[in-house]
Amino acid sequence: MREALVTAAFRLFVERGYERTTVDDIVTLAGVGRRSFFRYFPSKEDVVFPDHERCLADMTRFLATSDRTADPVDRVCDAARLVLRMYADNPVFSVQRYRLTREVPGLRAYELSVVWRYERAMAAYLRERFAGRPDGTLRADVVAASVVAAHNNALRSWLRSGGGGDARLAVDHALECVRSAFGTARAAPAGPAEDVVVVVARRDVPLWRVVRRLEELLARS
Amino acid sequence: MREALVTAAFRLFVERGYERTTVDDIVTLAGVGRRSFFRYFPSKEDVVFPDHERCLADMTRFLATSDRTADPVDRVCDAARLVLRMYADNPVFSVQRYRLTREVPGLRAYELSVVWRYERAMAAYLRERFAGRPDGTLRADVVAASVVAAHNNALRSWLRSGGGGDARLAVDHALECVRSAFGTARAAPAGPAEDVVVVVARRDVPLWRVVRRLEELLARS
Repeated sequence: MREALVTAAFRLFVERGYERTTVDDIVTLAGVGRRSFFRYFPSKEDVVFPDHERCLADMTRFLATSDRTADPVDRVCDAARLVLRMYADNPVFSVQRYRLTREVPGLRAYELSVVWRYERAMAAYLRERFAGRPDGTLRADVVAASVVAAHNNALRSWLRSGGGGDARLAVDHALECVRSAFGTARAAPAGPAEDVVVVVARRDVPLWRVVRRLEELLARS
Repeated sequence: MREALVTAAFRLFVERGYERTTVDDIVTLAGVGRRSFFRYFPSKEDVVFPDHERCLADMTRFLATSDRTADPVDRVCDAARLVLRMYADNPVFSVQRYRLTREVPGLRAYELSVVWRYERAMAAYLRERFAGRPDGTLRADVVAASVVAAHNNALRSWLRSGGGGDARLAVDHALECVRSAFGTARAAPAGPAEDVVVVVARRDVPLWRVVRRLEELLARS
C-alpha cells in the first residue's frame, strides 16, 4: 500500500507537476482512501522522501553499534555510504526526485532539513568519539559537514547525469578525499597496517631534507 | 520604519511567543499599517532574519571583488567573518533570535536555507578559483562546508552562552583549524615559493618507493 502510494504519486508528479497534483489525485490513482495516505505520510511533501526516515534510523543504529576500535572518520564515511545505497538502489526514482527538488522550493527546503539531520547524526557520533580531545566538538562538526558535502557532490553529479555510471565509485573517491584530510592519517590509527605518514613540503625544500624528515617519522613508529 | 517593525516584532516574540504573535500585533505595536510590513518583509518569518539578505549580498560582492592572488581558503574564511560580524555587532538581538530558532521548527528550516545560501555562495567562488584542478568542485564544496561548520560551531557556542566572551576570537580559532587542513599548504600555489608537495604513504611502504614517487612529483614541476 505504502509503495503503491509512492508509485502513484511520482507518476502524477512527473506527468502534471508536483504543485498541480493533490493528495486526492494520488489516492484515486492508487485506489485507496485519503485516510490511508495520511496513515503513511503526514503531508504531500513526505511522499517525496519515503525512505529517509528508515535510512536515518539505519544510520543512527549503525553508528551506535559500530566497533569502538574502528577509525571514527571511516565509520561516518561508511554511514554516508548507507545513504548512497538508498539512492543507487533505485536510480530512476532517485533521478525523478532530484528533478522535483530542483523545481519545487518547498521540497528543496525539506531536503535541506533531511540532509541536516544526517549531518547531525554523524556529528553526534563523532562528538562522542572525539570527546576529551582538544577541539573535539569543532572537529566533529567539521568532519561531519565535510563527509556530507563530499557525498552530496558525488551523488548530485550522478543524479545530474541521469543516474548513469557507478555512483558508488564516485562517492568512494569523494569520501577518500575527506578521509585523507581528516582520517586515519591524523586520527588514532586502527592498527599498524593502516598506519600512514603524511609529509607536506614546499617544492623548493631540498629532497634530502624531506627524506630526513620521513626517516624521523618512520623511526618513531 | 523597517527597524521599528523588527523591534516591535521581537518584543512580542519574546513576550508572548512567536506563534502567538500575528503580523497585526506587530504593526499595531509599531504604529504602522499592514501594507508597510509587507513592503519590507514577505512574511512573518522574514522579520526574524532581517539582515541576512544584505549580508549575503555583501559576501557575494566581497568574494567577487577579492584579490585574485589571495589564498582562496583565506578569502572564504574572511567571508564567514562578515556573517559573524552581523551577529556579534548585536549580541542581544542575536541571542533572542537563536532562542527563537531553537523553539520554532519553521524558523529552524528558514535558517537552514539561509545557511545553505551562504555555503553555496562560498562554494561558487571556490569552484571558480579551483577550476581546472583535479577534483576542483569536490574540494570547493568540502572547503565551503567546513568553513560554514567551523563558523557555526563557534557562533553557536557563543549564542548558547548568552553572547558572553569574544565571538570573533572563537570563530578565528575555529577557522584556523579549517585553514590548517585545507589552506595555503595544500591549495593552489600563488607562486613558486608557495608550491608544495603532499605525500601520503602507509608506514609499511618501503622508503625507496616513497622517495621515487617524490622525485617523480618534483620532476614534474
